[in-house]
Amino acid sequence: MGYDASGLPDITGLTVGIIGGTGDQGRGLAYRFARAGQPVLIGSRSADRAAQAAEELRALPGMPAGVTVSGGDNVEVAGRSDVVVIAVPWDGHRDTVAALREPLAGKVVVDCVNPLGFDRQGPYPLRVEEGSAVQQAAALLPESRVCAAFNHVSAPLLADPEVDRIELDVLICTEDRDLVGLVAALAARIPGMRGIYAGRLRNAHQIEAFTANLIAINKRYKAHAGVRVTDL
Amino acid sequence: MGYDASGLPDITGLTVGIIGGTGDQGRGLAYRFARAGQPVLIGSRSADRAAQAAEELRALPGMPAGVTVSGGDNVEVAGRSDVVVIAVPWDGHRDTVAALREPLAGKVVVDCVNPLGFDRQGPYPLRVEEGSAVQQAAALLPESRVCAAFNHVSAPLLADPEVDRIELDVLICTEDRDLVGLVAALAARIPGMRGIYAGRLRNAHQIEAFTANLIAINKRYKAHAGVRVTDL
Repeated sequence: MGYDASGLPDITGLTVGIIGGTGDQGRGLAYRFARAGQPVLIGSRSADRAAQAAEELRALPGMPAGVTVSGGDNVEVAGRSDVVVIAVPWDGHRDTVAALREPLAGKVVVDCVNPLGFDRQGPYPLRVEEGSAVQQAAALLPESRVCAAFNHVSAPLLADPEVDRIELDVLICTEDRDLVGLVAALAARIPGMRGIYAGRLRNAHQIEAFTANLIAINKRYKAHAGVRVTDL
Repeated sequence: MGYDASGLPDITGLTVGIIGGTGDQGRGLAYRFARAGQPVLIGSRSADRAAQAAEELRALPGMPAGVTVSGGDNVEVAGRSDVVVIAVPWDGHRDTVAALREPLAGKVVVDCVNPLGFDRQGPYPLRVEEGSAVQQAAALLPESRVCAAFNHVSAPLLADPEVDRIELDVLICTEDRDLVGLVAALAARIPGMRGIYAGRLRNAHQIEAFTANLIAINKRYKAHAGVRVTDL
């Protein structure tokens, strides 16, 4: 069976909102989706900062003419988007997500937050009461369609206009199998990426935590490491 | 800097012992190492079963002339090997490793055990008091040099004589940075594999647990999935 990009749904025109779109990861993803022609809304606690980030993004190299990139506060962006990416720092995750329960009802929510701590020995995974960041989001958003994805994407690579392709697989964890195609189609908007179903939400913790290993790899090998699944 | 196989140490002649060498994973690794010309000792609770597994391995296609593959009980194999791979089922891990403390003193120990449970929803990671299987081994073997590696290698691929190359990276977690080269050299004996340093022991849990995701991927895509680290 393998991975088959030809069967992915058409997501042209779906608006992608990025909660935490002024942070490195969120801004980088916003840039890539917009660069691929996807309408993007940048969300932030401050509508002003979101609007400023959107303006900066529109000025970056490679943006197609006429692509929509605008900003708003998180509630507005959640309400106006079809697919909403959660890209906030872990320590704001619970409160930010909880406050968006209503506007996110019925929406596709893609959580890419990695609960990590750092000490003198480097990064390590934090214990999360619900098991993982995405399970926390799923518990807080019972009326949304929730998955984890884009956990391992290097923010510096996303942000670098000189980088045309990012060779890695986006691992998708969800209870909602019908979501996988849509999120894989979103991943495929970034050249070099594939979206791969990688298990249920109860197996998302280790994907979030694996980011600590990627940081260790980056340090040791001076790389921007990602993961490619072999044999598919 | 990146990954550079040219700097790996020469491990020719080092004897590799496989504790749990009659199981699928252990037998498969033994086959690959022996096929590459590495002297291999198969360990089992029963010396007879180990000797029988060694005899079966020697008869497999691709074995170089004169390669050493023999069997013995776990204590004997631990004592006679330079590098010892722990490949026992998780539920026998603690007792097996604890019983080998003396013969493993001063040895390199490579733990490839994944603590997983299975229910109707498939595989999931088990909670380990010490944090991970390899941390349990490190706690039980204070005089050994311990790492996790070979956690993600597909046993069916290892066992298939028709398979010449196995394209994946062996993620190595350890506190002993000097071990990494040796274990990477061992991984490199299997064509297609690289050994990559992937963090300290406290970041091994998610590598062991990620095997649950690979099992989910295998089921969904009918694959024998592994992991390749990108950008190195």
